[in-house]
Amino acid sequence: MTDPRTITEYAARAADAARVLATWTGAQRRDLLHRCADALAAAEDRIIGVAAAETGLTPARLAGELARTTGQLRLLGDFVAADRHRDPLASPAAAPDGSDVVTVPVPVGPVAVFAASNFPLAFGVPGGDTAAALAAGCPVLVKAHPAQPETSRLLADLLAAALAAAPAGTFALVEGGPEVSLALVTSPPIRAVGFTGSLRGGRALMDAAAGRPDPIPVYAEMGSLNPVLVLPGAARDGNWAAALAAAVTGSAGQLCTKPGLVLVPACPAGTALADGIAVAVAATPTHRMLTEDMAAAHAEWLDRAANLPGTKLTSAPPPTAGTGERTPRPFVVQVEPEQLSGDLLEEHFGPTVVVCAAPVDAYPGIVARLAGSLTATLIVDPVDPADSDLAVALLPALAERAGRVVVNGVPTGVAVCDAMHHGGPWPATSAPWSTSVGTAAVRRFLRPVALQGLPAEFVAAVFPG
Amino acid sequence: MTDPRTITEYAARAADAARVLATWTGAQRRDLLHRCADALAAAEDRIIGVAAAETGLTPARLAGELARTTGQLRLLGDFVAADRHRDPLASPAAAPDGSDVVTVPVPVGPVAVFAASNFPLAFGVPGGDTAAALAAGCPVLVKAHPAQPETSRLLADLLAAALAAAPAGTFALVEGGPEVSLALVTSPPIRAVGFTGSLRGGRALMDAAAGRPDPIPVYAEMGSLNPVLVLPGAARDGNWAAALAAAVTGSAGQLCTKPGLVLVPACPAGTALADGIAVAVAATPTHRMLTEDMAAAHAEWLDRAANLPGTKLTSAPPPTAGTGERTPRPFVVQVEPEQLSGDLLEEHFGPTVVVCAAPVDAYPGIVARLAGSLTATLIVDPVDPADSDLAVALLPALAERAGRVVVNGVPTGVAVCDAMHHGGPWPATSAPWSTSVGTAAVRRFLRPVALQGLPAEFVAAVFPG
Repeated sequence: MTDPRTITEYAARAADAARVLATWTGAQRRDLLHRCADALAAAEDRIIGVAAAETGLTPARLAGELARTTGQLRLLGDFVAADRHRDPLASPAAAPDGSDVVTVPVPVGPVAVFAASNFPLAFGVPGGDTAAALAAGCPVLVKAHPAQPETSRLLADLLAAALAAAPAGTFALVEGGPEVSLALVTSPPIRAVGFTGSLRGGRALMDAAAGRPDPIPVYAEMGSLNPVLVLPGAARDGNWAAALAAAVTGSAGQLCTKPGLVLVPACPAGTALADGIAVAVAATPTHRMLTEDMAAAHAEWLDRAANLPGTKLTSAPPPTAGTGERTPRPFVVQVEPEQLSGDLLEEHFGPTVVVCAAPVDAYPGIVARLAGSLTATLIVDPVDPADSDLAVALLPALAERAGRVVVNGVPTGVAVCDAMHHGGPWPATSAPWSTSVGTAAVRRFLRPVALQGLPAEFVAAVFPG
Repeated sequence: MTDPRTITEYAARAADAARVLATWTGAQRRDLLHRCADALAAAEDRIIGVAAAETGLTPARLAGELARTTGQLRLLGDFVAADRHRDPLASPAAAPDGSDVVTVPVPVGPVAVFAASNFPLAFGVPGGDTAAALAAGCPVLVKAHPAQPETSRLLADLLAAALAAAPAGTFALVEGGPEVSLALVTSPPIRAVGFTGSLRGGRALMDAAAGRPDPIPVYAEMGSLNPVLVLPGAARDGNWAAALAAAVTGSAGQLCTKPGLVLVPACPAGTALADGIAVAVAATPTHRMLTEDMAAAHAEWLDRAANLPGTKLTSAPPPTAGTGERTPRPFVVQVEPEQLSGDLLEEHFGPTVVVCAAPVDAYPGIVARLAGSLTATLIVDPVDPADSDLAVALLPALAERAGRVVVNGVPTGVAVCDAMHHGGPWPATSAPWSTSVGTAAVRRFLRPVALQGLPAEFVAAVFPG
């Protein structure tokens, strides 16, 4: 566990580093980020070996995640080197006194990042928030996920070496439990927080940040139900059963964008689709979960769901002895629309989903009861006029409750690109205006400063980046 | 005082209005904003008469402020009609499944706006936050400033009539004290808060918003010292005394960007400039302050400053009997650098400023003790190499502490344009990433939603704006 005095020391060094980094150009920051990407890519086998052993995720999944991690480091570096983080609105204009005014982005200062367990690389120590903060010119203090000390230390060692050319204090790893988290968030030099994890954890950090003498923003990505609505025309396409089951069970159901609720129409095609999803989920091979606590919570949810009134459960058989407590049993809870409330409308990590056959005229009422999600998905037959009309009627309420609306796809893949928004209304995130994926993520660690009447040589000397 | 049940009713109607407004195009919203501007312009004489009587501000100042208010309504309307609120990064890209992803801005929902007393028009009922929220497509509940009931009601009546074509619930005025403020900020349908006022008031709203079951953002503009640093070369230009004194005393010193601290170099030219500012401030005619409480706080600060160790006061003579308790005595507090702490580094409303002659090598240490401000100003002789070197050395620390850095001007005029950033680090604002002035202000009431795989006809039908 990192000592509180060590956190104070790291934060003070980060504040010093911030002043130096603020004078760096975008091209210099790009070079830093590319060196980090190169270092991670060169250590691919070690990283995958250590992470697979510690997390239970498959080497194939981790290889894909590592490529994404190095890709986003490079993308964000290229983004700032090309000056694309500058606000296109901020072209020079005349101030009241006739002088020019122009707005430039400056880094906010030291950032605290909390590594997520379910993406040990892409949202872990060298993940999206770390990449965005470094791209913005902010030093980073990353807190390792307590379940992944070995992976975190290996990644931190690789980053620290790759950042040798950066000012001392640009990067540090801290480890520990809730007290360390709170010490980090309340440390005076810290100017912003990035977090991916549970609602309870995120809320605790938000409360601590809001209670500081000088409140700071917490960009927290938390729980998300990710509802999927299947319309009657599309329900006739039985292929959706396999696609949705794969989205539910991929990575043992431990994705933030995993569908947690599927509404199918109460008609023969809809109920056949519901049964198809149930069978496919229960039959999908899975692997151990990230932590014993998560596996226990999944097993406990299986017990609880089986005893809810009006539910029908389809689950994989109990594991044979010796497969370990971390291996989850995939299961589907089928419920009547009138039972849909409470726990059935909340996120449950693991290979499980709630499936409900409901008359389509009940869809709007169900949607109205949903909290904010990262995603909302419509499965629709676009050449069926009835489906199209229903889709247009339902889309506004889905957009009101989600950061990404998907039509005829599954929500689990998130493109890392300019156009991506990965966020959403509470409780999916604490900051619905901000994205944790894509180039726009750099903005959460930048702050505009208007420069009025500054001679060009001052701008060039002081605000290069 | 507005009844709590009435606030609940207004907020529910605003939530209904939000769903309709979300289907409007930018051009439709522009037309709304232009009608508001037209209605205010047509009632200019009445507005200025009522506001002058209630606030003590001069008709000339209020005429300028009204032009700014109508101008920003029109500018923000034109901005969204031209689709300039769309994120240029959000051009279509390929999602992992090969479908297109594009991000569109959607309105956040009902917004609570707290009218400021010091700009009864431009930051009042029809002010910047109201214009930005309507431009974004958000209904607005405005709380009148308690000191300005007549002005607020007149402006609200004019707006309500101009908004007749908008959905019912798009606009409402509420009145009352702190309980009404808290009821508004904790009302479930409210999605964001705009506030301009005191640090104490802003912090109370922030704490209430952060304590909601679903925390919402508060965009609060609060106290600001607005330091001005005069460098030795520039101190030789005696014209700065009159310019700075005018910035301190304009609108009776009740501007958020009023200089509160002027550092001059400890040299003959610097001390002459300090004396010149002191004489000019004390000699400037003033007018009554916005409220009796503000006038009392100003008088109390005069008493307190006179008794601080090591200060020298230059003040206007006491008012003759009968000029009213709201008329302030302009004064300047001259202090030694070693006295600069506590109260002397905080914002004081009214025609007053702290002036300190210090060796220029003490400037960095003084700047390091300053909290966040809306502005920071350097007065520099750009053809004097010593001044230029000092400026380049000081600018990074000023940018770290301000939302706008001004060179060779006064900070009190704020241009309403694309390039403006009016914000700054805590305690100047609660959201250093956001501006309350200029077209970028619309963004605080928008939220991105990524649309993945949506047929073009769905996008056109559901996300027109």
